[in-house]
Amino acid sequence: MEFWYTEEWTENVRFSIKVDQQLYSKKSDFQQVDIFESQELGKFLTLDGLMMVNEKDEFVYHDCIVHTPMCVNPNIKNVLIIGGGDGGTARELSRYSSIEKIDMVEIDELVVRASQEFLPITASKLEEDSRIHLYFEDGVAWVANAKDETYDLIIVDSTDPIGPGEGLFSTEFYQNCYRILSKDGILVNQNESPYFAHNAREMKRAHEKINRIFPIAKVYQAHIPTYPSGHWLFGFASKTFDPIKDAKVDEWNALGLKTKYYNTDIHVGSFMLPTFVKEMLEDAKSSK
Amino acid sequence: MEFWYTEEWTENVRFSIKVDQQLYSKKSDFQQVDIFESQELGKFLTLDGLMMVNEKDEFVYHDCIVHTPMCVNPNIKNVLIIGGGDGGTARELSRYSSIEKIDMVEIDELVVRASQEFLPITASKLEEDSRIHLYFEDGVAWVANAKDETYDLIIVDSTDPIGPGEGLFSTEFYQNCYRILSKDGILVNQNESPYFAHNAREMKRAHEKINRIFPIAKVYQAHIPTYPSGHWLFGFASKTFDPIKDAKVDEWNALGLKTKYYNTDIHVGSFMLPTFVKEMLEDAKSSK
Repeated sequence: MEFWYTEEWTENVRFSIKVDQQLYSKKSDFQQVDIFESQELGKFLTLDGLMMVNEKDEFVYHDCIVHTPMCVNPNIKNVLIIGGGDGGTARELSRYSSIEKIDMVEIDELVVRASQEFLPITASKLEEDSRIHLYFEDGVAWVANAKDETYDLIIVDSTDPIGPGEGLFSTEFYQNCYRILSKDGILVNQNESPYFAHNAREMKRAHEKINRIFPIAKVYQAHIPTYPSGHWLFGFASKTFDPIKDAKVDEWNALGLKTKYYNTDIHVGSFMLPTFVKEMLEDAKSSK
Repeated sequence: MEFWYTEEWTENVRFSIKVDQQLYSKKSDFQQVDIFESQELGKFLTLDGLMMVNEKDEFVYHDCIVHTPMCVNPNIKNVLIIGGGDGGTARELSRYSSIEKIDMVEIDELVVRASQEFLPITASKLEEDSRIHLYFEDGVAWVANAKDETYDLIIVDSTDPIGPGEGLFSTEFYQNCYRILSKDGILVNQNESPYFAHNAREMKRAHEKINRIFPIAKVYQAHIPTYPSGHWLFGFASKTFDPIKDAKVDEWNALGLKTKYYNTDIHVGSFMLPTFVKEMLEDAKSSK
């Protein structure tokens, strides 16, 4: 018998992983949650049939989404994670002793519970670190209700803009993020991919909206082989900091954090984009 | 009816592309040559069941393998391409009026003929540009027989080190490349991928050998979604030039070449590698 998990990257492209067994399968109020075990990727979590995290390359995504803003402002004290139910983003943040509080607002409790049971690699810090406050609430409502200038960093660790993640790609959401960020605040978001047409459309829409609201809005890239095309983007937006000029390279390196993907060279390199991506982002901006 | 091309990235990971039709299928003396037509990637060429080029993303590979060395030394006059039967590397080189001669040594004539018939996007310059001299010979023998200091640039545009490409990953081959390069000579090679174990092994072996022979040996990366993992590497080795410090950024930009992937920012960014890749390369070097 062979058992394969197959993801439709587009109608015409499929990515398949040979699976040893399905460890978990449940429909929450929001989405279908599955966890599989495989030879190649170890255990992996999917939501509505899309890869979220796996033991082999989760470090790439979590390194990029956390250490990039932390290197630009090592004085970040208060952080808001929207989504991030697998716990990997909270885990990387918890390595900074300088951070005082991490609010994590995940709409779907089932994702957190399943990750805590099967993916301690990402979820282990959620219980251990008392600075992490877990709220099973809607991120859109959370940012609408939060007070002005509450956070120094907001990380939008969302699914694609279909299903529960949709509101996290709206102008109103980004406007509230701006309002509740401190005067040096930074917003980082998973910003889809430039390769397949449907991802590229969402990438442009997200960047266009963020760019209208934040004075500084850049995009950086990473190699995440298990996401569609492996060419994945993150957004970096801020009120004051430029992600390259204001990177505190020496200060970050002095922390001595061991990382498997991120380093202060690739911090710079990740903002240097292929011409076709730059052109897509320029297009998005000019369609204001 | 559905018709799918499936590539085994590993025993446990498959990448599949929905195909409209198979345009060409022939076994040469060296390998199985197929060309397919698809919605997502346009036409694509495979050798022994491995993706070589497709109309959607061939520009990434050919931009990286050609413009990176050309930016470091815009005075390159004599070029040797080993492999590159689809013609894409020759096409990009032919855009430099400063280049005087391009010897292209491809072991398998069938690859060139099939590409000329079905992939004019890459192969069109092979007949048009009189500076391109096509030899259907073994690249290993070619470099063994060439005179000292014949070329300013050698591009190893090979398949994986299995089948006809195997000798192009040998120490003897790289030693001859060194010998036949001029005193400012540059060697660029496709250097596999760090992600899946079997690719990573070949990546380390190639780098270790090149690093023993050339005083300067670096690795740079690109996003090529249709190659296994999408995280692909190239080697840059030279007798005198550092790929970053000696890049002639203004000079290259003054040429006004329009490119879809390459630019002088990503030139720099592509040499900034994830920590796990840096560590693999260091391991390879210390196993001398």
